[in-house]
Amino acid sequence: MELKVDVNRCSAELDRLAQFSDVPAPAVQRVVFTPTDLAARGYLIELFEAAGLRVRVDPIGNILARWEGADPSLPALATGSHTDAIPYSGKYDGTVGVLGGLEAIRTLQQAGVKPRRSIELIMFTSEEPTRFAYGCLGSRLLSGQLAPDAAATLTDADGQRLDAVRQNAGFKGLLADVKLQPGHYAAFVELHIEQGPLLERAGLAIGAVTAIAAPAALRVRYTGPGGHAGGVMMADRRDPLIAGSRLALEVDAAARDSGSPDTVGTVGVLDVHPRAVNSIPRDVQLEIDVRDIDGPRRDRVLERIKRQAQTFGDELGVPTTIEMINADPPATSDPTIVAAIEKSCADAKLTHQRMVSRAYHDSLFMSLVCPIAMIFIPCRDGMSHRPEEYSSPEAIRAGIEVLARTLYQLAE
Amino acid sequence: MELKVDVNRCSAELDRLAQFSDVPAPAVQRVVFTPTDLAARGYLIELFEAAGLRVRVDPIGNILARWEGADPSLPALATGSHTDAIPYSGKYDGTVGVLGGLEAIRTLQQAGVKPRRSIELIMFTSEEPTRFAYGCLGSRLLSGQLAPDAAATLTDADGQRLDAVRQNAGFKGLLADVKLQPGHYAAFVELHIEQGPLLERAGLAIGAVTAIAAPAALRVRYTGPGGHAGGVMMADRRDPLIAGSRLALEVDAAARDSGSPDTVGTVGVLDVHPRAVNSIPRDVQLEIDVRDIDGPRRDRVLERIKRQAQTFGDELGVPTTIEMINADPPATSDPTIVAAIEKSCADAKLTHQRMVSRAYHDSLFMSLVCPIAMIFIPCRDGMSHRPEEYSSPEAIRAGIEVLARTLYQLAE
Repeated sequence: MELKVDVNRCSAELDRLAQFSDVPAPAVQRVVFTPTDLAARGYLIELFEAAGLRVRVDPIGNILARWEGADPSLPALATGSHTDAIPYSGKYDGTVGVLGGLEAIRTLQQAGVKPRRSIELIMFTSEEPTRFAYGCLGSRLLSGQLAPDAAATLTDADGQRLDAVRQNAGFKGLLADVKLQPGHYAAFVELHIEQGPLLERAGLAIGAVTAIAAPAALRVRYTGPGGHAGGVMMADRRDPLIAGSRLALEVDAAARDSGSPDTVGTVGVLDVHPRAVNSIPRDVQLEIDVRDIDGPRRDRVLERIKRQAQTFGDELGVPTTIEMINADPPATSDPTIVAAIEKSCADAKLTHQRMVSRAYHDSLFMSLVCPIAMIFIPCRDGMSHRPEEYSSPEAIRAGIEVLARTLYQLAE
Repeated sequence: MELKVDVNRCSAELDRLAQFSDVPAPAVQRVVFTPTDLAARGYLIELFEAAGLRVRVDPIGNILARWEGADPSLPALATGSHTDAIPYSGKYDGTVGVLGGLEAIRTLQQAGVKPRRSIELIMFTSEEPTRFAYGCLGSRLLSGQLAPDAAATLTDADGQRLDAVRQNAGFKGLLADVKLQPGHYAAFVELHIEQGPLLERAGLAIGAVTAIAAPAALRVRYTGPGGHAGGVMMADRRDPLIAGSRLALEVDAAARDSGSPDTVGTVGVLDVHPRAVNSIPRDVQLEIDVRDIDGPRRDRVLERIKRQAQTFGDELGVPTTIEMINADPPATSDPTIVAAIEKSCADAKLTHQRMVSRAYHDSLFMSLVCPIAMIFIPCRDGMSHRPEEYSSPEAIRAGIEVLARTLYQLAE
């Protein structure tokens, strides 16, 4: 089958979507349920409806756009990703899976395909944990991994509850109604940039993802007496930033010592209060991210970090609180879908390799309700979550064609 | 001479002033040129005028309230302090020197004293570096230590220039006109809480300050490639928070290793950008405060910190910028004024000791234009720059009486 992917249209739509941002270009920031996020959603729904898709928005704001198949009674295929963007990030993370998914559907339509199964394109709400310190809100609720009550009471930095925020943003109905029925989808396939350097280094067009790393997030807080930076002698100090700094170094060391390059550990947030040059810190809070494709190995690293976090607080003599934000199991791709992706690469004459995803995606939670797999494309220097994030039109075109061919195979 | 200090009136005024705050009580936050700061200034001017003082406000917003002496042609005596407050601080730092100075003048008035020299009560603008990362703006400009052009171009976190901010706040005229003429003041005496534990531990009422520590502030910035917390393997990382954490520990160690308990080193600000749990830090900035009563010893500690700051950046392979924000010389009190303070303690039957100030005060810059000294009173547990900051009415009463007696001696 000949497929003509209009990558220029998709690139133009990616550029347009990037203009919905709360920071100056080329940086992008689109945080869930902000006016900017809502405006971007409006743009996406226009595009979906223009392609003849029937749009449904669920109570958490997931957008589900359906291309009706020849036999609507069959469980549908699903594809998609997210369009929210962390502060000062780029324009390809997630968006390539949504707008590329749309382009894959339009490509099949334009080739005259009438699939037997319906195909649904999903834009998942808040894959990024930016606002509620909790990633993949949309897919966690679709899969039932996150209880509606637990979701409702998540709060943002301003202390606003998720349930109030989503309703004020216009997403009504019961969060309990988000959960999908068993067998709702036949399969889910997500197209995404690699967010790592391996495909580019190997000079390959496509990565067929066989497993997704298990992410865990931890919050550690140290509280000290503080005081005036001039007035309190060193011998009298218990500065929580000392414990916090030791912990930041420990997280790095623990990940490097795991014995596998698949383990990563990051301190992405380190907040100092009251944050004044002449004031000894009184409150230091770290948010720590640890991932691995091997759950038990990740948990051994987490245990070392938690143990040392407590030790550093005890040695300093300050109160220490350690809180697990989340700890999800790894996911394994469905061999049939991976095989379909590989056949699509062969049909499209594109090079590929099997690989794992160290980053964390909505596919991780969709794996709880249906077979899944992911299609990776290279991104420049493996960069992501920064303004310089880039995938070439050629790389995106290849991803769209492989996604289209994979959906075609699975839909028959 | 009998002096009746109305400490209850002063305590009530301290409580009222603390209500001008941008954070919930008991915490206080009053940042220069905010509406809250301007409202507090209005309250002070009312009090000063009610005491019969002639109020002048200079172009940087210093409030100078004059009690005319019998011989107005003589250089005046000055006393005073500041009323700005860093985020989440307390209600005694600085304010005791302003409202206690007012109470000392009212006490002398009530005792029927008519001093030969005029006495001026000064409320200095922005002793705290909170907004413009530069402390003692008012006294630096009064003394000529800070050039008007350099002051005008200081910017706050929002990028607003000091010159625009102060004019929008209603402080017009040329910054060049703030500088005092040589011989303008005969002497300056500042009443202040100790902000350290020594007087309380020794069970003494008064500290006669013989020297003020030399403060220095340093800004260090590390910039790395950042990236996705899941996507970038440890071996490919150059995380600037690693260098920042090592530097925070080094600042603490360098101060402790100086050989003197009079050396203190603090990292009060450590900012992480973009500050997302799943994003590797791309930009880490530290603000470092180092103080000592011995300038050369302080500078040796600073040199070690600067050298190591560069080493940590080089070892990580990330760009490093090191910027001195300020480095002021220590100040020595005038022996005549210190002797007058000690005689006042004897006359008032109050215990005292000579001591140094590790914290940094407007007196440091006033020492460039006239003889100075400071009067310290104990504060509970040596705490300052936090909501629990506290000095008892009895401690404040003692400080006011010693200040009043000292001004009386020096005014004759």
